[in-house]
Amino acid sequence: MKLLNKITEPTLLLDKGKCILNIRRMVQKAKRNNVHFRPHFKTHQSVEIGEWFRQEGVLSISVSSLKMAKYFAESGWDDITLAFPVNIREASQINELAGKINLNLLFIHPETVEFLDLFLENQVGGLIKIDTGYHRSGIPASDNKKVSKLWKIIRNSGNIRFKGLLAHTGQNYHASSKKEVVANYYNTLDQLQEVAGNISNDQDKIMISIGDTPSCSIVDDLSGVDEIRPGNFVFYDLMQYKLGSCRPDQVAVVMACPVVSVRKERNEVVIWGGAVHFSKEQILHENKIPSYGQVAELTKEGWKWTGGDEFLASVSQEHGIVKLAPEKITKIKPGDLLGIIPVHSCLTANLMKGYLTLDGKKIDHLSGTLEV
Amino acid sequence: MKLLNKITEPTLLLDKGKCILNIRRMVQKAKRNNVHFRPHFKTHQSVEIGEWFRQEGVLSISVSSLKMAKYFAESGWDDITLAFPVNIREASQINELAGKINLNLLFIHPETVEFLDLFLENQVGGLIKIDTGYHRSGIPASDNKKVSKLWKIIRNSGNIRFKGLLAHTGQNYHASSKKEVVANYYNTLDQLQEVAGNISNDQDKIMISIGDTPSCSIVDDLSGVDEIRPGNFVFYDLMQYKLGSCRPDQVAVVMACPVVSVRKERNEVVIWGGAVHFSKEQILHENKIPSYGQVAELTKEGWKWTGGDEFLASVSQEHGIVKLAPEKITKIKPGDLLGIIPVHSCLTANLMKGYLTLDGKKIDHLSGTLEV
Repeated sequence: MKLLNKITEPTLLLDKGKCILNIRRMVQKAKRNNVHFRPHFKTHQSVEIGEWFRQEGVLSISVSSLKMAKYFAESGWDDITLAFPVNIREASQINELAGKINLNLLFIHPETVEFLDLFLENQVGGLIKIDTGYHRSGIPASDNKKVSKLWKIIRNSGNIRFKGLLAHTGQNYHASSKKEVVANYYNTLDQLQEVAGNISNDQDKIMISIGDTPSCSIVDDLSGVDEIRPGNFVFYDLMQYKLGSCRPDQVAVVMACPVVSVRKERNEVVIWGGAVHFSKEQILHENKIPSYGQVAELTKEGWKWTGGDEFLASVSQEHGIVKLAPEKITKIKPGDLLGIIPVHSCLTANLMKGYLTLDGKKIDHLSGTLEV
Repeated sequence: MKLLNKITEPTLLLDKGKCILNIRRMVQKAKRNNVHFRPHFKTHQSVEIGEWFRQEGVLSISVSSLKMAKYFAESGWDDITLAFPVNIREASQINELAGKINLNLLFIHPETVEFLDLFLENQVGGLIKIDTGYHRSGIPASDNKKVSKLWKIIRNSGNIRFKGLLAHTGQNYHASSKKEVVANYYNTLDQLQEVAGNISNDQDKIMISIGDTPSCSIVDDLSGVDEIRPGNFVFYDLMQYKLGSCRPDQVAVVMACPVVSVRKERNEVVIWGGAVHFSKEQILHENKIPSYGQVAELTKEGWKWTGGDEFLASVSQEHGIVKLAPEKITKIKPGDLLGIIPVHSCLTANLMKGYLTLDGKKIDHLSGTLEV
C-alpha cells in the first residue's frame, strides 16, 4: 500500500472493515440473545469509532473515567455507565455531567452513596459492583449482608436510582482454555443471580450486567444476563487470540514500526517501537519467553500474521527488539517497516493517541490533560 | 498541603527543589570529572524542566526521538544528540532540523550513512553506537572490522562529521549490587577505549560518550570518559533506588491517586491509578512478588516513603490494587489520596503528560500526535 511510504514513525494502523465487522458481530449476538448492549469505549476512546457503533444502532456505552464520559457526552452520547468504582473527589464534575445525560455510577461502599446523595443536585443511576472471583474490586458475591445493606441505602436515597448488579469476570484473562472461560462465565452468572435473588423477592427486576470480551466472544448463549459491556472486541489483540476470543484475521489493529538496525548474527532487528508505544504488557511466548507482540507482514491490502517464531522479544522506552526467522533476517534492512500485532490493544491505543486507517485517514483518540 | 484538596484524578507531583538538587549534583559531578554533560531529556520531556538545566549551565542535550529534538529546538536548544539509531524514514525532517541546530545522529550501518550522506543538504554530527554487552543495539565492541569500516565511511562522507563513540550500559538495570554497576561501567569504558585505540592512532581525538543513570550516579571517578548522558537522575524512581543510584529522599516525583475502595479483609485498597498512569513496569518486591510502585505518605511538605510492606501489587487499565499494613487499612477511606513512588519515572511521566509542583504550578510535557 502506498500509505506505508508515508509512515515515518511508529503508527497504529486500523482496518476499518474488520473493526466494523467486529462491532456488527457483537451487536447481532446481543440481539440474538435479547441482551442490552453497552460496549466499553475505553479500548478505542475515539469519537469517530463511536460513530461506527451508533451506525449499528448502539445507544448506550460504558467508559472507565469521568473524562472519557465527558468526551463522549460532548459528541451526543447520553446514556453512559462509568464502569469504575465512583471517585467522590470528582463529585462536582459528576453532578455537572449528571445534569446533562443519564449517568450510571458504580458503588461498593455505603459512605460513597451517602456522600453523593447529599452532595448531588442531579440524579444518577447506581449499580452495585459485585466481586465474583477476580478480586479486583466489588462486594464479594458471598457477602449477602453487605450487598443487602448497600442495596437498601441506594433504594432509600433521593438522588441515586438503583439500576442493578455489575461484575467483571477478569479472571478470564488467566484462563488456559475456552472451556475455562465458559465455566467462569456461568460461575459469575450463577453468583449474580443468587445475589439478585437474595436482595429482592422480585428477582426479575434486578438488572445483571457483565462485561469481559472473552466471555462475550466465546460464550454462545448469553441469555441469562440483561446487559453486556465488552470493549476490547472492537480491535481484539494477541492476548485475546491466545485466549481463544478471536481469529487472527479479526484483529483490527497493527503497529507499523520503522526498522533502525539489523543484527543478523542474533536473528534480531531493532525497531523504533518500545514501551511508550506498546506498553510493557506481555504474554508468554512458547518456551515461556515474554513476548510484547507478534510479527505481521504489512501488505498492499493491510497485513497478515506471519507464522512461526517471530515476535517482539523486548521493549525499552523507544527501542524494541524483534526476533525474526533466519530466512527473513537476510532480506530486511534499516528503513523498512515491520508490522507488530500488539499484546494489549487498549494500552497500545491509549499510548498512540490516534489511528491511521488503511485508506490513510487519521482517527481521533482522547488525549490526556491534567485537571487541577 | 492545600494542594491535595484540589486533586481529583491521578496526578504526578513534582518536588522542584529535589529535582533542581538532582540536576545540580550531576552538573557538579561532571565538572569535577572534567566530563562534558549532555543530559538525556527523554525522562522529563519538558521545556520548563529544561530551563532548570539551562540555569545550571547546561547547553547540550540528548533526546530519543526527532519529535523530541524539534520540541526542544523550538525552545532554544541548539546542540542535540538523537541518542537512538537513526531512522532514515525521517530523512526530510532530519535535514530540516539540521539546517537550524547542531544535530548529532547515531549510526550502526554503512547503508544509513551512505543514504543520508547523499540525501542531506545540511551537515549532521555522526556517532558510532557500540554494544558493550547490553545487546540492544550497536556494533559489538569486539567487531573491530565493522567499527573501522563504518568509521572510514563516516570520515569520507561529506555531510556527516564524525563525533565519537557512544554506548549505553543498559546491563546495569539487571545489576544486583552497586559493585556490579561499577564493574559494568569500567568494563564498558575499557571496551570503548580499546575500540577507540583500534580505529585511530591518535586516540585522544575519539570522543567517548556513555549514559546510564546508575553508572553516572554510583561511579565516583568518571574521568575516563569524555561525555555523560544520564536522564533518569532528574527524578529518579523506585528502580533506581533499588539499584543504589539514589536515596529515597532524592526521588523527585510521586503519584497522588484517589482511593475508590477499601477491602479490609484483604488489607487492600483500590486506587484510581493503573497501567495508563504507571505503565506496567514492575520490579520484584520481597518474596519475589511483582511491585508496580511503593506507597508514600502525602504530607504538608510533600511526601515521605512509608517503611514496610506497602506497595502497588497489581495494575489493570485504570485500577490499581495497593497492599497496606493492617493498622493503615482501618484508617483509610474512599476519597482519600494515596501516594505511590513509581517504578520507572520515565514511563510514568510519558503517560501522565504533565506535572504538578508542590506549590501548585502545572509543568509541561511533550504530547504525542501522529505525523503522516
